[in-house]
Amino acid sequence: MTQTKPPPKLDTVAMEAFLEKEFPQVFGAGKTFHVEAVEHRFARMRCRYDPRQLRPGGTISGPTMMTLADTGLYVAILASIGPVALAVTTNLSINFLRKPDQKDLLAECRIIKLGKRLAVGEVAIWSEGEPDELVAHATGTYSIPPER
Amino acid sequence: MTQTKPPPKLDTVAMEAFLEKEFPQVFGAGKTFHVEAVEHRFARMRCRYDPRQLRPGGTISGPTMMTLADTGLYVAILASIGPVALAVTTNLSINFLRKPDQKDLLAECRIIKLGKRLAVGEVAIWSEGEPDELVAHATGTYSIPPER
Amino acid sequence: MTQTKPPPKLDTVAMEAFLEKEFPQVFGAGKTFHVEAVEHRFARMRCRYDPRQLRPGGTISGPTMMTLADTGLYVAILASIGPVALAVTTNLSINFLRKPDQKDLLAECRIIKLGKRLAVGEVAIWSEGEPDELVAHATGTYSIPPER
Amino acid sequence: MTQTKPPPKLDTVAMEAFLEKEFPQVFGAGKTFHVEAVEHRFARMRCRYDPRQLRPGGTISGPTMMTLADTGLYVAILASIGPVALAVTTNLSINFLRKPDQKDLLAECRIIKLGKRLAVGEVAIWSEGEPDELVAHATGTYSIPPER
Repeated sequence: MTQTKPPPKLDTVAMEAFLEKEFPQVFGAGKTFHVEAVEHRFARMRCRYDPRQLRPGGTISGPTMMTLADTGLYVAILASIGPVALAVTTNLSINFLRKPDQKDLLAECRIIKLGKRLAVGEVAIWSEGEPDELVAHATGTYSIPPER
Repeated sequence: MTQTKPPPKLDTVAMEAFLEKEFPQVFGAGKTFHVEAVEHRFARMRCRYDPRQLRPGGTISGPTMMTLADTGLYVAILASIGPVALAVTTNLSINFLRKPDQKDLLAECRIIKLGKRLAVGEVAIWSEGEPDELVAHATGTYSIPPER
Repeated sequence: MTQTKPPPKLDTVAMEAFLEKEFPQVFGAGKTFHVEAVEHRFARMRCRYDPRQLRPGGTISGPTMMTLADTGLYVAILASIGPVALAVTTNLSINFLRKPDQKDLLAECRIIKLGKRLAVGEVAIWSEGEPDELVAHATGTYSIPPER
Repeated sequence: MTQTKPPPKLDTVAMEAFLEKEFPQVFGAGKTFHVEAVEHRFARMRCRYDPRQLRPGGTISGPTMMTLADTGLYVAILASIGPVALAVTTNLSINFLRKPDQKDLLAECRIIKLGKRLAVGEVAIWSEGEPDELVAHATGTYSIPPER
């Protein structure tokens, strides 16, 4: 990106406060998902390793990774357009690439289109310390409601 | 389908017992997901309405529907090839079509390809009583490990 | 579907005339793609077997099947909302399930959501005479412009 | 990527010669698609602007972009594993993000998983001179046949 980026509409602390209030099950006490960094059109998320999410064979469950991808793209959109808008997921497509380690997962979420009605983003997910071999890759599409 | 279908390798009761043992978080006590019917290459699932899964605005969360789709396709594959094989999701793509009602969700899961290495299926999800207007539609791809 | 369906806004003959005029490369002289039937929210298409589309190994090319799926969903949308609107594909996702035979391909295209701004559909593709084993399955999302 | 990359198994000239021989319709005389650069797990492709591919409204057709994405990922896989293997597309999912200009399209194709049986890649497509605003983004999955 060679264009100058505007600052995020919510910083990391404000974003986590917003999410805790709006999504207490996902971001409340003992929460699994954390916002590590936000920028305009970008979010980096962490999913804490939690043995309760393990599937047979010791792997982190697919639905946990889907939730990480979906939540991270939602955070990246809020960072870009602010907390007022209620973006809704219209499509999520995820490829599971290899079995994650028994470690935290990190996710980098980038908005590749930020239109007035539609946002599209992609997510790369890896086990902490191994950014060269992705565990999963997702793309998501979000509908943005018209401003009132 | 005009071909004669073989019976499922696990019936509904055996399937639920298998899932309870292997996936206690998803199918254990107070479980949300239920197997209603299985056939060769088919499963019908129910997701009980649970206010704790609600998002702001009163809708059932996207990750809950993704879990329903993924779990249902896994059940339809087990019904077709038996409980020994450990199928792994390689892709899940879901379109969210409209806001679900505050009711149970039903899902019909069909395996459209059942190969030796790869199975592909599709899922239609609707709010109970409204089968004409889908809430979500998903497709999933599963890798089947070689037999020992 | 238990609801009464409205008639299509264009019948098969009118649809082919419209397509020939608007998409001469795809539906013009010596055309490969044909509209076999249209209904509200539905189209059945035929792709004539043409050895020039073959890949090494004698299979019909993936891009030919993607074009068939995309064109068929577009036809099913036009059949539902009429030829005025200029629907634009926003996502197409296709699973290739097995190698097609050296025969015509048939495609059934169903619109599973027909909203004011967004339409979503699915497509089943098979080699003529073998409807039980799909060759490919696709889903597509289309943006519908606001009426003037 | 911090790992040292092996050289590509085919350089750009050898790749174009291979493609011309194997896919004369796509890479033959008057061809639209060109290989600009190959590396291990990477290809950059060019799609020449050709008014015959235009849709109503002056845009490059969706199927042309799908073909560019699919071909580019195939080239990136061949660059990584050599020309012997016959990789087959099993899934292609493409998001169309904005209307392309009446210019050449460029595509960067990266293999994000290169397994023994399965390769997965992603593709970013933009109009020449405008890399900051993607025209389309695709992901593809390829089945790699066992070595003989």
